[in-house]
Formats: sequence, structure tokens, C-alpha cells
Amino acid sequence: MGKLVEEFNNYRTKMNDRIMETSNTNIKRFFALDTTTYADGALDVKTKEMLGLVASMVLRCDDCIKYHLEKCYTEGVNQAEINEVFMIANLVGGSIVIPHYRRAVEYWDELSAS
Amino acid sequence: MGKLVEEFNNYRTKMNDRIMETSNTNIKRFFALDTTTYADGALDVKTKEMLGLVASMVLRCDDCIKYHLEKCYTEGVNQAEINEVFMIANLVGGSIVIPHYRRAVEYWDELSAS
Amino acid sequence: MGKLVEEFNNYRTKMNDRIMETSNTNIKRFFALDTTTYADGALDVKTKEMLGLVASMVLRCDDCIKYHLEKCYTEGVNQAEINEVFMIANLVGGSIVIPHYRRAVEYWDELSAS
Amino acid sequence: MGKLVEEFNNYRTKMNDRIMETSNTNIKRFFALDTTTYADGALDVKTKEMLGLVASMVLRCDDCIKYHLEKCYTEGVNQAEINEVFMIANLVGGSIVIPHYRRAVEYWDELSAS
Amino acid sequence: MGKLVEEFNNYRTKMNDRIMETSNTNIKRFFALDTTTYADGALDVKTKEMLGLVASMVLRCDDCIKYHLEKCYTEGVNQAEINEVFMIANLVGGSIVIPHYRRAVEYWDELSAS
Amino acid sequence: MGKLVEEFNNYRTKMNDRIMETSNTNIKRFFALDTTTYADGALDVKTKEMLGLVASMVLRCDDCIKYHLEKCYTEGVNQAEINEVFMIANLVGGSIVIPHYRRAVEYWDELSAS
Repeated sequence: MGKLVEEFNNYRTKMNDRIMETSNTNIKRFFALDTTTYADGALDVKTKEMLGLVASMVLRCDDCIKYHLEKCYTEGVNQAEINEVFMIANLVGGSIVIPHYRRAVEYWDELSAS
Repeated sequence: MGKLVEEFNNYRTKMNDRIMETSNTNIKRFFALDTTTYADGALDVKTKEMLGLVASMVLRCDDCIKYHLEKCYTEGVNQAEINEVFMIANLVGGSIVIPHYRRAVEYWDELSAS
Repeated sequence: MGKLVEEFNNYRTKMNDRIMETSNTNIKRFFALDTTTYADGALDVKTKEMLGLVASMVLRCDDCIKYHLEKCYTEGVNQAEINEVFMIANLVGGSIVIPHYRRAVEYWDELSAS
Repeated sequence: MGKLVEEFNNYRTKMNDRIMETSNTNIKRFFALDTTTYADGALDVKTKEMLGLVASMVLRCDDCIKYHLEKCYTEGVNQAEINEVFMIANLVGGSIVIPHYRRAVEYWDELSAS
Repeated sequence: MGKLVEEFNNYRTKMNDRIMETSNTNIKRFFALDTTTYADGALDVKTKEMLGLVASMVLRCDDCIKYHLEKCYTEGVNQAEINEVFMIANLVGGSIVIPHYRRAVEYWDELSAS
Repeated sequence: MGKLVEEFNNYRTKMNDRIMETSNTNIKRFFALDTTTYADGALDVKTKEMLGLVASMVLRCDDCIKYHLEKCYTEGVNQAEINEVFMIANLVGGSIVIPHYRRAVEYWDELSAS
């Protein structure tokens, strides 16, 4: 596992643990909903993770992009497919998405090298 | 075809025609790119239209939502599938998406009744 | 009850009913969470509704603004207080919020005249 | 003056008057700042209004777009120039800007016909 | 004072000083307005800072979140109260807010340990 | 060339090269469009770069801001002019832009010192 992936996952795990210690019931429910929403259903996990990725890209949230990139990678999204997700994100969200796309390519390269 | 669908498509066609009359070369290229991006490729049109829909919902653009809803409907996205796209949009984008979700349901009902 | 308030509430009720008929379990949970979040707790309902209002204003969602304006009105937020919420929204969100502020003033006037 | 322009300006004037009657000192200062910011300075009014327009378009605020379009028209921005502003807005903000661009073209046509 | 808090405040002070040296009159007025808006008024400072925090969270501005978190802490917002602000931000803004919420919890922990 | 400018440009070049190696035809077209849009035309490059800057600031994209700041500097935008662009961005986008404005001032200082 590459350095960017490791750092992101470690921080995410550490703070999610802290959130579970400190948060209230509604926040815990919101986090639970965040998990069940991406579970296999009428749409498969691969499609849902691509939906989560494109939503994260047009909203320009680097951490959310990293999370869904890893899930997409695990679900077997290939280079040609991820490029088409990237293109939709750039088109819909505009050139303002490009810096996030650069970082996404770097992260995807690290995932692919693992 | 229902009233909401008809009004949206008529206005869209009218103004796109006017844009083709008045715009410059770069704008025409941008519109061409907007078409080719959603063409069948590594991902099929159905998946791409769901990606376009979820991106439009989290960015809260009613006209974009209407456009991709009709494409999703034509591509055979069913009720259970569209609900899962709606849920991802609501979750990622937050309760601020709900008013757009309401109007999306109304538009989807009209498409489904046609 | 004024015309704007009536139209908004009627459409909201109609479509929320339709959502309850057509949506999936996760969406229903999300809507339930949307209700419990604003319930009386460590912060009182009045404070929470002002928080919901300012969040809706900086995100520029007219329907969300209308909803929280009515709740604020019912909770007894007075003119001087609502002005301070409006000011924080305009300051944080910028002049892009002003058109939404105009419509909020019109809606608040209608609520106040009831 | 066309119908869209008239309706927008009438509502804007009516509600700005109401805001001056009901708002607090900070809001009045914010509105004053909104005026002085676009005054002739190191940059001329024409350039500033194009800056206001492109900012309004990428933030997708139809009323703000209408306001700056009229100012741009009055300042003598021509068709080729406004097209280049439109293109930057579409490129930076993405295809999500297109519905606002359609309405901008309609409004610009009405201004040009006056 | 913890490391995150110190770094943020030092950079903020340094650059605000530089802004006061280089900016124009309108910018100075805007900064003055940013101060007076949060002063004690019809709403108390504690409420206003929670309003500033929730607005900053849904707009996903980490620096703004840090600033208002420290003010909330100083004004005596307790853990149960800040959790309810966090929940409203997550609900209204969606899961896209979660990475900012993680960093907010880390910053709040540092403030609380001081 | 200062450290911030160098780091930004190096990373941007490295990842743009990687994008040209890995991306698809539509993405390459989008990047080409991103270049031609800012070319000299009915509006000169200086004006277009200020338009790109203000759009980047209200959308709060630090990397985009850095890119257009350097272009503005090269095109001869002076301190009084850049301040007026900064003011329009702060006014339209709100106080949420201020942290990005701080970093923009730091970057502009580095460009000016070169």
C-alpha cells in the first residue's frame, strides 16, 4: 500500500474512532446510513461507488474522492472506465475540478501500483 | 408526454438553437463535448446517465436533473435503481438536496405515466 | 396564511407523501433523521431552526429557507433576531445570497402578516 | 424594455426598498459595499461588471446574472465579448452552468432588442 | 495551546496584518463588517458563533471552521451542544461534510485539552 | 521564483504530463479547450485572466487561484487592480473566501518578489 493511501486511511480510521466515542445518536445513525447506502442492492456496489466518486468530484472533496477511488479500485473498475467517470466529473463540474482530478490520478496510480 | 417534460424540452431546444446561432467556436466545442461524453464507451449509456444524474443532484441543478432523468428513463433505469441514485444524492449532498428530490420525483412520475 | 406560504406547504406535503409511497428504506431513514435532528435537545428548537436557516441561506436553497423561516417564526424569533441571522448569511455567503434574502424578506413578511 | 427585464427590475426594486425599511445597520453597510465595489476605480466599470457576471454564472445565481448582464449591456459589452465571458463561465463552472447560460442568452436578447 | 490551534492562529494573524498593509478601503470595510456582525446584539455571541460555525461547515471551509470552533469554545459551548451543531451541518450539507467534521473533532479535542 | 510558486508549478506539470499519458480523447479535448478559452480574442488575455481569477476565488479553488494569479502577474495586473478583483471575489463569494484571499496575498507577494 502506497504512502498517500496509508496516510489517508490511518487518519480516517483514527478520527472515525474518535467520532464514535464523542458523537451523539443522530450522528451515529448518519454514519450508519453512509454505510448501508453503498451496499449491494438494485444497483451493484461497483456502480454505486462510481456514483459516489462522481458526486465527490463535482463537489470537490479530496478525501471523499480518495475513499471512493479505493472502493472503485477494489470493485474492479478499470482504467478506461475510471477515465469516463473522470471525464463526466470534469465536464459537469468544470475546470475547477481539474486540480482534484490531478490528485485523483496520483492516488489512482498509487492504488494501481499496490 | 406530460406538461413538465414538454415545457422543459421545448425551452431547452429553443435556447440551444439560439445558442448555436449566437455563440463562438469554443462554446460550440464545449456543447459537442457535452454530447460525446455520455456516448456508449467503456461504461454504457445507462451508467453514464446515472452518473450525470447524481452529479446534477448534488450540484442542485433542476434543469440538469430533468435532462438526465429522461435519459435514465429511456435507458430503462427502473424504480428501485432510480431510488438508489436518489439516496446517494441525498446522502452525499445532504438535506439541501431534498427540494430537488421532490421535483425529481414529480418529473419521474410524469415520465413513467407517459 | 398567505399565498406563498400556502403554496410552498401544499407542494411540500404532496411530494413528501409521494416520497413515502415510492422511496426505499434508506431514504425513509434519511427523512426520519431530518426530523429528529431539529428536535429539542442540548440546544433548543429555536436555536436549531436558526442554524438550519443560516445553513440553508448560505447554500442558497429557497425551499429550505422557507421551511426554516416558518419554523423560526413559530418558535418566536423576532425581527431583530432574524435580521442578525440574515446578516450572518449575507456576510458568510456573500452578495450571491442577496436574491435569496429578498425572497426571504417577502416570505417573512407574509408569515408576520398572518 | 422587455418583459423579463421589467419583471426582474420591479421585484428587485420593491424588495430592496423593503430591505431598507426592515434591515439593520450591518445589512445596510453590506448593501452599500455592494454598490461601491463596482464603482470606477483601478479597473473600469465595464471590466468590473464582467467580473461580477462571471462570478455570478459560476455560482449559478440567475438574479445576479440578470443584474450584471444589464450592467454589461449598458457599459457597451458587445456580442463577441459577452460570448467570451459566457465561455469562461461554462468552462470553469462546467456543464452545470448551461441552463443558466440559456436563460442568460434569452435575457441578453431581450436587452439587445430594447 | 495545541499545535493545530497555534499554527492556524499564527498564519491567520500574519496574513491579516499583510492584508491591512496591502488592501483597499472596500476590503478594509468588509473585514470590519466581518467583526461587527458577530458582536453581541439581539442574538448573543454564543449563538452567533454557532451560526457562523454551521455556515462554515456546510460551505466546507476548514479555516472558517477552526476560527468559529475556537470562538464557540471560548463562549462555553459544551460537548453536547457542539455535537448538535455538527449533526445539523452533516445533515444539511451531507456526507461531503464528514472529512471536515473529522478535522473539526480533532481541533475541538485540541481546544478542550488546552 | 519563490517556493510556493515553484512547488505548485512542478506538481501541476508533473500531473498534467501524467494525465496526457493516461486520459481519454474527451479529457484531452477538455484540456485543449481550457487553453484556447483564455487566448487573446474579443477580450484581451489580461481581462480573461482576471475573469478566471475571480471565478476561481468565488468557487474557492486554491490551485486555480494560484494558476490565474501567476497569469495575471505576467499580464501586468498591478496591485490596485488585483485588489479590486480580490474585493469583488470577497463581496460576491462572502467571508468564506477570506482564507483563500489570505493565501492569494501570500502567493501574490511571492510572485511580486521574484
